[in-house]
Amino acid sequence: MSTGPLRIVIVGGVAGGASAATRARRMNEQAEIVLLEKDEFVSFANCGMPYHIGGEIPDRAKLLVATADLLRKRFRLDVRIHSEVIQIDRASKVVTVRKWPDKTVFHVAYDKLILTPGASPIVQNLDGVGSTGVFALRNIADMDRIRSAVDALTGTQRKAVVIGAGFIGLEMAEQLASRNFDVAVVELQPHILPPMDAEMVVPLQEELNRENVKTYFGSGLSRILHDKGQVVGVELENGTQIEGHLVILGMGVRPNTKLAIEAGLEIGKTGGIATNEFQQTSDPDIYAAGDAAEYLCYPQNQRMRVPLAGPANRAGRLAGEHAATGRSAAMSPVMGTAIVRVFHQTAAMTGLTVKAAKRAGLECRSVTVIAGQHAGYFPDAYPITLKIVYSPDTGKVLGAQATGRDGVDKRIDVIATAMAFGATVRDLAGLDLAYAPPFGSAKDPIHQAAFTACNEMDGLGSMLDADADLSGWQVVDVRTPGEIAKAPITGVSKVSAIPVDDLRNRILELDPAKPTVICCGVGVRGHVAQRILLQRGFKNVLNLSGGVTLRRRAVPEK
Amino acid sequence: MSTGPLRIVIVGGVAGGASAATRARRMNEQAEIVLLEKDEFVSFANCGMPYHIGGEIPDRAKLLVATADLLRKRFRLDVRIHSEVIQIDRASKVVTVRKWPDKTVFHVAYDKLILTPGASPIVQNLDGVGSTGVFALRNIADMDRIRSAVDALTGTQRKAVVIGAGFIGLEMAEQLASRNFDVAVVELQPHILPPMDAEMVVPLQEELNRENVKTYFGSGLSRILHDKGQVVGVELENGTQIEGHLVILGMGVRPNTKLAIEAGLEIGKTGGIATNEFQQTSDPDIYAAGDAAEYLCYPQNQRMRVPLAGPANRAGRLAGEHAATGRSAAMSPVMGTAIVRVFHQTAAMTGLTVKAAKRAGLECRSVTVIAGQHAGYFPDAYPITLKIVYSPDTGKVLGAQATGRDGVDKRIDVIATAMAFGATVRDLAGLDLAYAPPFGSAKDPIHQAAFTACNEMDGLGSMLDADADLSGWQVVDVRTPGEIAKAPITGVSKVSAIPVDDLRNRILELDPAKPTVICCGVGVRGHVAQRILLQRGFKNVLNLSGGVTLRRRAVPEK
Repeated sequence: MSTGPLRIVIVGGVAGGASAATRARRMNEQAEIVLLEKDEFVSFANCGMPYHIGGEIPDRAKLLVATADLLRKRFRLDVRIHSEVIQIDRASKVVTVRKWPDKTVFHVAYDKLILTPGASPIVQNLDGVGSTGVFALRNIADMDRIRSAVDALTGTQRKAVVIGAGFIGLEMAEQLASRNFDVAVVELQPHILPPMDAEMVVPLQEELNRENVKTYFGSGLSRILHDKGQVVGVELENGTQIEGHLVILGMGVRPNTKLAIEAGLEIGKTGGIATNEFQQTSDPDIYAAGDAAEYLCYPQNQRMRVPLAGPANRAGRLAGEHAATGRSAAMSPVMGTAIVRVFHQTAAMTGLTVKAAKRAGLECRSVTVIAGQHAGYFPDAYPITLKIVYSPDTGKVLGAQATGRDGVDKRIDVIATAMAFGATVRDLAGLDLAYAPPFGSAKDPIHQAAFTACNEMDGLGSMLDADADLSGWQVVDVRTPGEIAKAPITGVSKVSAIPVDDLRNRILELDPAKPTVICCGVGVRGHVAQRILLQRGFKNVLNLSGGVTLRRRAVPEK
Repeated sequence: MSTGPLRIVIVGGVAGGASAATRARRMNEQAEIVLLEKDEFVSFANCGMPYHIGGEIPDRAKLLVATADLLRKRFRLDVRIHSEVIQIDRASKVVTVRKWPDKTVFHVAYDKLILTPGASPIVQNLDGVGSTGVFALRNIADMDRIRSAVDALTGTQRKAVVIGAGFIGLEMAEQLASRNFDVAVVELQPHILPPMDAEMVVPLQEELNRENVKTYFGSGLSRILHDKGQVVGVELENGTQIEGHLVILGMGVRPNTKLAIEAGLEIGKTGGIATNEFQQTSDPDIYAAGDAAEYLCYPQNQRMRVPLAGPANRAGRLAGEHAATGRSAAMSPVMGTAIVRVFHQTAAMTGLTVKAAKRAGLECRSVTVIAGQHAGYFPDAYPITLKIVYSPDTGKVLGAQATGRDGVDKRIDVIATAMAFGATVRDLAGLDLAYAPPFGSAKDPIHQAAFTACNEMDGLGSMLDADADLSGWQVVDVRTPGEIAKAPITGVSKVSAIPVDDLRNRILELDPAKPTVICCGVGVRGHVAQRILLQRGFKNVLNLSGGVTLRRRAVPEK
C-alpha cells in the first residue's frame, strides 16, 4: 500500500480509462494517478476506426484523441504505455506489470484501482485463421494493418468477406464497399443486425442489396481458405465457399476479465466484472468500467454487459470521481441504445426488442408505424419505420427500434430519454416536440406510434402483428386498386378489396361475424376502416400493423 | 338543442379543427359532425406556406393536406366552407353562421361545440398599410397573392421588407432571399428571435449577414411608403427608410376570441380562451383548441397561449374525442418547443429562457456548451451551441435553447422529453443516447452541459455568465498564443495568458487572493484550469461559460 498521497492506478486507457483518469485528476490535484496501457496508444477513437479504413476519415491523427503527451501535460498523469498488468495482489494492493517488448516486470502500488481493460474481438480457432489477410479490428495497429491490406489489394483481389452482420460488421462492409471492394457479409443468425427484430432490418438489407453487398445467413464460418499463406476465401458450415483476399472477423467481443477473475473479483451472470452503482467491484477499492464491466440495465433491471462507448465513458468518469473523492453520482441505468449507418440508411434501437422481451419472460405488445421524418409536403421526406415495444398492462415503454434515411437517431434518443423516466406510451403521446416543416410533423412518428398503442390499450382498435398467419381471417384491403396492383398483400389467398372511402356503402359485402383484419398502406386508413366496422356490429376487427408495407417485409413475396 | 344523434359542431378547420373532427368521427360513427370554415380551404398545411412562396415546395396542392372532399368521403363530415360562425347561443345551443359571399345566414344546432378559430396576424393600422404589395400571411389566399407578387416583381423591384424577426419572419426572409430578393428584416426588439436569449441567436444573425439579409433593430414600423397605391418601402419610428416593393407583416398573431368573448366564455390571463385539461371551456359543452386557446404550460404551471401547430393538433384531437365520448386523456403540459431553419443554421428552444425565467420570477442558473453535433474526428462536424436553464436549488431543467447547423432538433427534443418528466440536470447527465461517429459523441453536448451544471451544483466549479462585467477580475486566458491572437477575449483590459498545460508551472504569476475568471475556447480547458487553481489555494475561481467563443457573441468586439 502506498503511504504518500492517494494513488489511483488505472488499467487500460481506451474503454473509459482515460475518462476515469482525467476526472480523477480534476477531482484530486494531489493524487498520484498512474495509467497503464498495454498497447501503444493510451486513448483513441476506436469507434472511428472503420471510417479511417474506408477513407471517410482520411487523417489518422484525428483518431488519436488524447495522446499520452497531452494526458501527461494537462492532467499530470503518469502514463505508461506498452505496460500490461498481469496480476493484482489485493492483499498488498500492488499490481504486477509486464513491460513490452522487453518483458521486464515491475510493480505499482495502489490505493484505488480502476479496471478498464475493454474487450477483445472473438477469434475462433479455425483452420487458416492465421493467414495473411485475416483480421480482427481491436486497436490502431489492427486498423493500420487492415488499411495497408486494403490499399495493397488490386483488381480481382478486391474482394472482402466480413464475418458477422452486427453493428461493427455492417460499418466495415459499408466502408470496404466504398473502397470498391466486392463485399460479402456472413451471419450465423437469419438476418443482419441480430439484436433487432427481423422485420425491422429489411430496409437496411435492401440497402445492402442495392449497394451490391452480398449477404449469407444461417451458417457459421467453418474454415478460412488460403493459398501459400494468403487468405483466398472462407468456407461456411453449410459448404458454401466465398472468395475473398481480405477477411474481417466481426463476430463480437469477449470481455477482458482474466485479470479480474484471477484476482478473485466477482463476475456477473453475463460474464462481465460485477459492479455496484459507483462501479465498485466486490473489492470496494477496485472499480471496473467499460466493456469488461456490467451495468444495471433498464428495463430488465438486471446487471449486464453493454459493450458501448457511451456507457463506458460515463461509467469511467464516475469511477474516477469516486476513486478520487469517495463519492459520486450513481451510474444511470443503461438501455443499450445503439445506432449504425449503412450507406444511406440508419438503424437504431434502445431497450428491449420483442424477441428480447420474450427471452426475458416479459409480456409485451408492439406497434409499428411508417411515417416521414418530416412533413410529407416538404421536399426529401423519407419514411422512418418506428417500432415501440410496451407492456400491455401498464403501457410502460420497454424499447424501440427505428430504421430510415434521416431522423432515426432523434426518435430513438427521444424514446430512450422517456424510458429513463419509466415513460408509458401515454406519455409519448403527449410529448411537446419541435416542429417546423424541415424537421418534423405536427404529429411526429413517435406520436403516431403512441396514439396507436393508446388506442389498443383503450380498446379502440387492436393491431395484428405484420407476420401473422392470416388463414381463416376475412382480409379487407382498403387501399385503391392502383395501390393494390402495385404491391399486393403477401401470404393471403383471398382478399376483399374495398377502398376505405367506399367502406360504409359496401359494408354488406363483408361478414360481420367473421374475424376480420384490415390492411392499408401503413396502417392509417386501416384504423379508420377498423373503427367503422367495429361501430357497425363487426365483432372482431384487427388492423394490420404497419399495413401492407410492413407485411411485405415480414412475409416476403414468393 | 338537437334531438337525434349526438351533434358535434366545429368552428374552424385549420388550427386543430380537422384533428378534432376526424378523431370525433373515429370515436363515434353515429354522430353528426359539422365542420364550419369561413375560408375556402378547410384544412391546409399553414406551416408550409412560406416554403411554397419561396419555391422550396413547388407543388401548391401538397399543402392542401385534407381536402373537404376527403373529409366528407372518408370521415362522413358535414363540411361547409365559406361559413363564418358569427354568434353562439349557449342557452339554446345553436350557432349562427354567415355564408360568404352572399351573406345569407343560417343556424346549426349543437350538442358539443369545438372552437378552433386560430389566430390572425397582427396588422397595425398604419398609413399605407392597404397599399398593393403589403401582405400578412394567414391563409392560402394570402399565400397565393404573395407568390404572385413575388413572381411579378422584376429587376430593382425585387426588394422585400419583413416586419418581425420571429420564427415566421425569418422563414419568410430566408425564402424571399432564395427567390433573389434583397431582404430587410425589421424587429422592434434588440435582436432576431426575441423569445430567445440574446447571445444565443448570434450564429443565426451571422448567417443572415452572410446571406446578405439586412436587419434593423430597436425601432418599430412607423408608416408604409407608397407611390400610386404600390408600396415602395417602409419608414421606422427612428426615421430610417427602407426600400421595398414587397412588405410582409410578421409581427405575430392575435387569437380569434371575439366569438368566445361575445358568448361569455371565460378568457384566460394571456388573452386566450380558458380551458381545462380536456380542452373544455367555462361552458363544459364547448371546447377550445389551437391558437385561440390556452394550455397548461410547463415549467411555469400556468395556463397560456402557445400558437404552435403541435399542441393545436394534439389538443384538437383530444377535444374531438372528449366531445364524442365524454372521456379522453388529459392534455399534456406544453413547453412551447419551437424550431426554425435560417439558411444553413437552425435555432430551437423549449421551456424557459433566462429572460423568461426572470420575468416569471423564477430563480435560475444557466450553462452553455459549444460542441460538435457528432464526433469531432468525423467529417462535417459543426458546433452546436446548447444552453440549459435550470433551478439552482433542485437542478430541475427549466428550459433549453440551441443553435447550429445539424442536430439542433434532436437535442431540443431530448431535453423537452426529459422536461416532461420533471428532469434535473443530473438526469440529463445519465441519458443513454445513441452514439456512432456519424450521429453523436460518446459525450453528447447534452451530457457536457449537464456535467457542467452538476459540477456547479456540487461546488466543483462555478460558471460566470458570458456577458459578465469582468472589471476587477483577474482574467486568465488558458488558450495557446495562436488562439488568443486570432480571437482575443472582449470587454477586458488586462489578461494573463497562461496555456492550461503550463498553469501548474506558472501558477506563481497569479494572485490567489484575487477573484479569478478563467477563459478558454469553449470552456473545457477552463474547467481543468479552474480545478487546478481551486485545489491550489485560490479562493474564488470561476470559468467563463462557453469560453471566449460565447463571450465574443455576448460582448461583441468594438
